[in-house]
Amino acid sequence: MTARSAATGGRPPRRFGSDNQAGTHPAVLAALTAANADHADGYGADPATAELADVIARHFGPGALGVPVFSGTGANLVALGALTDRWRPILCASSAHIATAEGGGPEQVTGAKLIGLSTADGKLTPAAIAAALAEPPSVHRSPPGVVSLTQPTELGTVYTPAELAAVVAVAHEGGARVHLDGARLANAAVGLGTGLAAASLDADVDVVVLGGTKNGLAFGEVLVTRDPGIAASLVRARKGLGQLGSKLRFLSAQLVALYGGDLWSTLAATANERARALAAGLAALPGVTVLQPIEANLVLARVPSPAAAELLRERYAVQLVGDAHRLVCSWDTTTADVDALLAELAATA
Amino acid sequence: MTARSAATGGRPPRRFGSDNQAGTHPAVLAALTAANADHADGYGADPATAELADVIARHFGPGALGVPVFSGTGANLVALGALTDRWRPILCASSAHIATAEGGGPEQVTGAKLIGLSTADGKLTPAAIAAALAEPPSVHRSPPGVVSLTQPTELGTVYTPAELAAVVAVAHEGGARVHLDGARLANAAVGLGTGLAAASLDADVDVVVLGGTKNGLAFGEVLVTRDPGIAASLVRARKGLGQLGSKLRFLSAQLVALYGGDLWSTLAATANERARALAAGLAALPGVTVLQPIEANLVLARVPSPAAAELLRERYAVQLVGDAHRLVCSWDTTTADVDALLAELAATA
Amino acid sequence: MTARSAATGGRPPRRFGSDNQAGTHPAVLAALTAANADHADGYGADPATAELADVIARHFGPGALGVPVFSGTGANLVALGALTDRWRPILCASSAHIATAEGGGPEQVTGAKLIGLSTADGKLTPAAIAAALAEPPSVHRSPPGVVSLTQPTELGTVYTPAELAAVVAVAHEGGARVHLDGARLANAAVGLGTGLAAASLDADVDVVVLGGTKNGLAFGEVLVTRDPGIAASLVRARKGLGQLGSKLRFLSAQLVALYGGDLWSTLAATANERARALAAGLAALPGVTVLQPIEANLVLARVPSPAAAELLRERYAVQLVGDAHRLVCSWDTTTADVDALLAELAATA
Amino acid sequence: MTARSAATGGRPPRRFGSDNQAGTHPAVLAALTAANADHADGYGADPATAELADVIARHFGPGALGVPVFSGTGANLVALGALTDRWRPILCASSAHIATAEGGGPEQVTGAKLIGLSTADGKLTPAAIAAALAEPPSVHRSPPGVVSLTQPTELGTVYTPAELAAVVAVAHEGGARVHLDGARLANAAVGLGTGLAAASLDADVDVVVLGGTKNGLAFGEVLVTRDPGIAASLVRARKGLGQLGSKLRFLSAQLVALYGGDLWSTLAATANERARALAAGLAALPGVTVLQPIEANLVLARVPSPAAAELLRERYAVQLVGDAHRLVCSWDTTTADVDALLAELAATA
Repeated sequence: MTARSAATGGRPPRRFGSDNQAGTHPAVLAALTAANADHADGYGADPATAELADVIARHFGPGALGVPVFSGTGANLVALGALTDRWRPILCASSAHIATAEGGGPEQVTGAKLIGLSTADGKLTPAAIAAALAEPPSVHRSPPGVVSLTQPTELGTVYTPAELAAVVAVAHEGGARVHLDGARLANAAVGLGTGLAAASLDADVDVVVLGGTKNGLAFGEVLVTRDPGIAASLVRARKGLGQLGSKLRFLSAQLVALYGGDLWSTLAATANERARALAAGLAALPGVTVLQPIEANLVLARVPSPAAAELLRERYAVQLVGDAHRLVCSWDTTTADVDALLAELAATA
Repeated sequence: MTARSAATGGRPPRRFGSDNQAGTHPAVLAALTAANADHADGYGADPATAELADVIARHFGPGALGVPVFSGTGANLVALGALTDRWRPILCASSAHIATAEGGGPEQVTGAKLIGLSTADGKLTPAAIAAALAEPPSVHRSPPGVVSLTQPTELGTVYTPAELAAVVAVAHEGGARVHLDGARLANAAVGLGTGLAAASLDADVDVVVLGGTKNGLAFGEVLVTRDPGIAASLVRARKGLGQLGSKLRFLSAQLVALYGGDLWSTLAATANERARALAAGLAALPGVTVLQPIEANLVLARVPSPAAAELLRERYAVQLVGDAHRLVCSWDTTTADVDALLAELAATA
Repeated sequence: MTARSAATGGRPPRRFGSDNQAGTHPAVLAALTAANADHADGYGADPATAELADVIARHFGPGALGVPVFSGTGANLVALGALTDRWRPILCASSAHIATAEGGGPEQVTGAKLIGLSTADGKLTPAAIAAALAEPPSVHRSPPGVVSLTQPTELGTVYTPAELAAVVAVAHEGGARVHLDGARLANAAVGLGTGLAAASLDADVDVVVLGGTKNGLAFGEVLVTRDPGIAASLVRARKGLGQLGSKLRFLSAQLVALYGGDLWSTLAATANERARALAAGLAALPGVTVLQPIEANLVLARVPSPAAAELLRERYAVQLVGDAHRLVCSWDTTTADVDALLAELAATA
Repeated sequence: MTARSAATGGRPPRRFGSDNQAGTHPAVLAALTAANADHADGYGADPATAELADVIARHFGPGALGVPVFSGTGANLVALGALTDRWRPILCASSAHIATAEGGGPEQVTGAKLIGLSTADGKLTPAAIAAALAEPPSVHRSPPGVVSLTQPTELGTVYTPAELAAVVAVAHEGGARVHLDGARLANAAVGLGTGLAAASLDADVDVVVLGGTKNGLAFGEVLVTRDPGIAASLVRARKGLGQLGSKLRFLSAQLVALYGGDLWSTLAATANERARALAAGLAALPGVTVLQPIEANLVLARVPSPAAAELLRERYAVQLVGDAHRLVCSWDTTTADVDALLAELAATA
């Protein structure tokens, strides 16, 4: 047995490439199974979807409406499709998932140009948004109609509620609406020590994507808004984009299992805690630099050793963001998983 | 206890509005559960998706490629998006699901005009397609680029392999490619007594949507093609439309459970048999006319009695297609379900 | 010299296929030439475009705004692009130009489905619109967002102001906005004996396309609205669709020449008068049936004789609408042109 | 009379903001006028358009096909619409007109993402394109399907034929097709001392936009390709985008007047010569830096004096590209125009 396989007891290691490499939490799977009771009406006219409406209202307030969809990219497409005039650009960080990892779907579906702004840490600032929105009017360019934020960002950083409110206020003053991609919103809220709404919609965001897949679901996200007109558009856009499940109960039941109690925060807290431990361990390795504060479950680190980089890529499925490695902890990542990774990395030195 | 509730033993009856009102077959759910073994790489780099590739090749031949997606509308959008130039119309029956029940998604996603042709029984004929494709060239109108078929049709009829081959040949001669919406393809194949390929791809169809949701899955369909170039476009289109599941194993495992053995034909055979019994019973009711031969699991019937129509609408969630009621049997519809419906209908007289 | 060439004095005859076969009126060409005085700022910051704004306000009221574009299809695309949510269909007559003769552009640009309603005479009725808008809400279909009218219709008929107001009121009550394709609006207004606004915008239409090309311009149409928000969207959509001329003065000057005085009505009156004479002559020919009242400059006639049909197609470039011939008179069609056509037709008997 | 107005003899000066501020060359206007001879068939079935086909073949070879359109943005939209799969990005310089000045039209019409690469001088290099095309394949991102070049670039620089061939070869090797925006192609060809084809299509470019508006036309550009399949797509895309003129003779006749003889090179030579004189004069002013070699009719200069900047903006309509002023000479810019501008600038010191 080599040093490498010894670190994981001979099994292939848990990957750190994405939190979608983890499976489905048992309680979520149990809820999906329980939803399989005989027949139910389709397209959301089922008890689980009704229960989900209550869950969303508990988190986001009595006026909040939830629109469940299949996937994170699907959620962003439906949201942007409902918010965007095709001739008004969408402003986002150049590192935003919608700009880098959705196969050009946002442009295909909305027709709108994406304008990616460089950031230090993945977060848009009021000043950067104000500058982009303040460009003098020109017949050749329409002002952005949507500002898209990610919480936590793709670099693992988290907007505080005050930062979020400031950013949203500037966007609204400039005539743009705000979309928040919260594929990992639970991790941000736990990192902030707030509820889900305080980490997102309470800042007057227009549409929030509340993720599920990355935090223990088999699949499923839910769009949340407090604006009935936007909600109606979301429902219309969802259908036309094939994101409306006919047997919606199997999606809604999972979301209820995750967000109906405190499973969401328990799972996110585990992932965040592992990320902090991982970052501390990485920072202690010679030559390794951790690039961003650990505010959620992502670690961005520069790992200059070719052997270490090869290990991360081949054995842990870790991807590069620019020249930095992005390591992601999941709801089921264990301390042993983290220790094994660190041990194998140390052994490459 | 009223006559009505007596017919169903006091429980609310099984609905006949759509086969998506049924749940998930236990074996499918077991496969989904079994796929939840620890971590797996995302986006299709998992064992279940690899196994699905083998299953597709067994049904459709060694060169056939499968691209799993979330939903039926999503499947059609991805297929049409991959096949269509935006300036070339899509030819379909005026009763086609893509024209009547997908929220305008095909136009939104492809930009192409849908041209719906009237049919007697939901089936396009070689003559009708030839006439549409033979319109003299005009700078004002591009010839159709895609012919879209449904197997079985939305009216419950089934193209024989010979009919299908004739229709596809005319489309290809006219320069159009062929999409086949097989949301209920299993029911058609069982109705024909053929395999899945003989009921679809073997007729030289370019892309087949092989459905799962309506035949016992929680969710999931798979696109099938033998053309590697089209397959590459399907993969690209799938990502940009948010139809690529990150935890794809939970979708692929269901498809493997359904199509890996003969579960697909067992379930479809049950639904088809119930539809035939239902049609026979309906035809025996005074004033009721069954409109199409029962070749799959749909029954189209004219039910003139207002009381009967109200019963079908309110208690059985049955929808109208024009002035006809469309009743759909599911993989788990029982003889008792059919008998109860017929008894309640008879009692309205 | 054959009988045929004798009728036109040996020259090839004036065509009756479309009023875009005529040239540019001399006064329009003189205005275009006069606009060529040295340099001018681009994209509408020129004196001719300023003058056009006044002309539009005189015709349509002080709040009316004009947005000049290159072509009729371009005008419709910009209007529909500004009015339409991609998931809400556009309702129109099945004979509408946007549905039959714009290369699928409306779907490509807006993503919206076109729903063509059959009509007796090219005119949508309040009842037909109400029925289409009253369909019960369904998650599978969004209600139409735009009703598109043509004035005069593609069959040569004209909505009276009262008819127009009734149709628009029903559309607005049903939550749809109204686009009016007035490629030949001058001919409708002259036919009605009203001004341009009374024949269009006064009925509370949201956007009017006021045509120019078919009434003596080299090229050019102008979109008119009284809604500043819609006007802003038109300006944005125009740029993104390549319909904003950089040297806009050469387009605006032509529109000013046509609509600044009464040239528009003089030219339209000529065309309408010729159409009436042509229709009277056709109706007197054996076997020929004139299908619609002559309310503008189009004549729809059934001409069963193969020899006559061949003459119309080959020598006069006359097109079929269904099984009827559509003959169009232009601003410069002469009585001799009409007589020659009638004589040649008579000679085929 | 102030010093300022003395420099221009009391008249407002010729603008230097764009070559579309100049008017129409008299010979072009005469051709447009001459085309107004009685009736002609529409949509290109006219003698002027037939003559244009010959003119294009003379410049670009017997297999080259020309597709005339109204505007430069329209030309780019039609070209990109014909070349692009919606899921494959378009690669261009970040300074490209399609990325900065077309109102987001390319994304709206094609659905494709634009990826703007930073350049030193507006020119894409083989290395930059190769790097962008060599990104490892990912399910999350499709490789670019089109590389878009501008000749001359928006910064006034010109690709040599060898540079162009190298860039195109790299694009083709990477599986992308090449679009060349030649809104000022005549200026590039004259700058290079070559013909139009040598400065564009001969490098194996797939579609060239040959501009007219900026070189003496009232309006009009023509798309050129040697690929019959692409030509067919251009014709289809042109119709659906409203860029097909019904009275096409008035557009084609202008293009014939410009490109049928050597008017194009005479006019472009004048503009280029004035640009060189202007650049020399600017470079001699204290504090002013000319940023790029003068290879066509654009001058990019850094003018730090606020008074000078204000003069350029207010009196000469000169726009900023980043922090540089972009001055454009036209086909009719005179030596006196240049001298007056330089004198007024000097007087601000």
